[in-house]
Amino acid sequence: MKLPRLATYSVNGATGYGAVVDGGLVDLSARYGNDYPTLREVIAAGKLLNLAEEAAARAPDHALSKITWLPPVPAPEKIICIGVNYPDRNAEYKDGQDAPKYPSMFMRSPRSFVGHDTPLVRPRASAQLDYEGEIVLVIGKQGRHIPESDALDHIAALTLCNEGSVRDWLRHAKFNVTQGKNFDSSGSLGPWLVPYTSESQIADIRLTTHVNGELRQDDRTSRLMFPFRYLVNYISTFATLVPGDIIVTGTPTGAGARFDPPRYLKPGDVVEVEAEGIGRLRNGVVDEA
Amino acid sequence: MKLPRLATYSVNGATGYGAVVDGGLVDLSARYGNDYPTLREVIAAGKLLNLAEEAAARAPDHALSKITWLPPVPAPEKIICIGVNYPDRNAEYKDGQDAPKYPSMFMRSPRSFVGHDTPLVRPRASAQLDYEGEIVLVIGKQGRHIPESDALDHIAALTLCNEGSVRDWLRHAKFNVTQGKNFDSSGSLGPWLVPYTSESQIADIRLTTHVNGELRQDDRTSRLMFPFRYLVNYISTFATLVPGDIIVTGTPTGAGARFDPPRYLKPGDVVEVEAEGIGRLRNGVVDEA
Repeated sequence: MKLPRLATYSVNGATGYGAVVDGGLVDLSARYGNDYPTLREVIAAGKLLNLAEEAAARAPDHALSKITWLPPVPAPEKIICIGVNYPDRNAEYKDGQDAPKYPSMFMRSPRSFVGHDTPLVRPRASAQLDYEGEIVLVIGKQGRHIPESDALDHIAALTLCNEGSVRDWLRHAKFNVTQGKNFDSSGSLGPWLVPYTSESQIADIRLTTHVNGELRQDDRTSRLMFPFRYLVNYISTFATLVPGDIIVTGTPTGAGARFDPPRYLKPGDVVEVEAEGIGRLRNGVVDEA
Repeated sequence: MKLPRLATYSVNGATGYGAVVDGGLVDLSARYGNDYPTLREVIAAGKLLNLAEEAAARAPDHALSKITWLPPVPAPEKIICIGVNYPDRNAEYKDGQDAPKYPSMFMRSPRSFVGHDTPLVRPRASAQLDYEGEIVLVIGKQGRHIPESDALDHIAALTLCNEGSVRDWLRHAKFNVTQGKNFDSSGSLGPWLVPYTSESQIADIRLTTHVNGELRQDDRTSRLMFPFRYLVNYISTFATLVPGDIIVTGTPTGAGARFDPPRYLKPGDVVEVEAEGIGRLRNGVVDEA
């Protein structure tokens, strides 16, 4: 059986959440919105799978063509992104440094992301908008000092990220990449949440990014330098992870900046981030108005 | 007339917001909570000053000794912190680099902060908890591409931050200081919001940090390398600033790490961050349980 998937969306100007079924989307917020205003509260209540299964028996309320996809968790407490996590990415920096002992990480604001099928925005300030395809863990259970042995029990769902970056602004500062990672609508999250039920969903899956149909990034999660269990353990050493928290787990080699000359995104391009069993996150590109 | 100040607090397990008046605190959430669930919504509605003035005529509902102070904006969309902004801070890094052209910045999660008079937590993972006294701008009006000439119109209030940092974890990563800036309860925000009404409140005020009564940091905002107008303009080049957003504007020289040997915080220490016209933010230190 295919796992049910849950999405946050807007239709006719109203935001809601629902389950993707054959032929469309079942509106769950109309039925459960009083108890759980957003998917974040559904996750916190441990009801993601229940609501999806409940919806599977229903007829769709909306055609998928009528909805605007939004990032699946609308206002997470934290969005933590991991840098340099697939092999060969450290070498790409050509700074002669050994592989790092700990992961690099930074935060993004919810406003830096659009949902599936909404265009990324190339900002006025730069022509160096770049793609980074990534797999996302969504936390389901609160915890601090979570041992690796329990780490996966804290994951509620999976989704995808195009962790879009503005390259020249990544290097504005003496330290930190914050600016280049937080342009409005420069990345995307989605299309939906796939409930996490088994390690086989993430242990060795293929992650690819295509630009205009051309394969640019292609790797497997079994090759991660800092695997998923490690990340949950490591982050929880300093911060309490809470339901709805987003961990964006790093991108394979092959972003546009790594080509010579670089191949940055331009209006009209289409980027597709895909992972086995999770889905395909597709976004166009437009210039900032 | 002294400007009214607004605080978020808990009393008997319930969280609310109110105005600090002679003899205590007027509970405003009991009166306005339906319209404005938190001070973030009060700010977004442009009602900060109105509510404070309204409260000034009332008798206090709670003695200050009975409340637990919380960070004044409980769940901001963004908390953006500026690194290296007072003179001599760049030189402290002793890396031979010129003064940076753009500010360094990073984000913190709300959970990394406690309120006034609640102890900072020295984590199990490190003995290098350090203080950084800073002045905080709270955004009141949404904007993108805000010119410097209009920048101060977007500020609703001022407060203080002890931007507590775990020094060895700042350098865990190849890039970015995220980990060392995001330990649970490692910093503080408060004690309250002072409504912003005039540039004279911030143009040239003294900012100090004392540890156990000893002066450690002492500088003036007129010496900022990246002044407040610049910061609002620069950040809004990449991100839309929204009501309740927090900009932590950088710390003077003199943090504990700069001494030889370093003087990190230990349980029982008391740190006081003070700025003219804003207030004094005081926190003890305890070890993580």
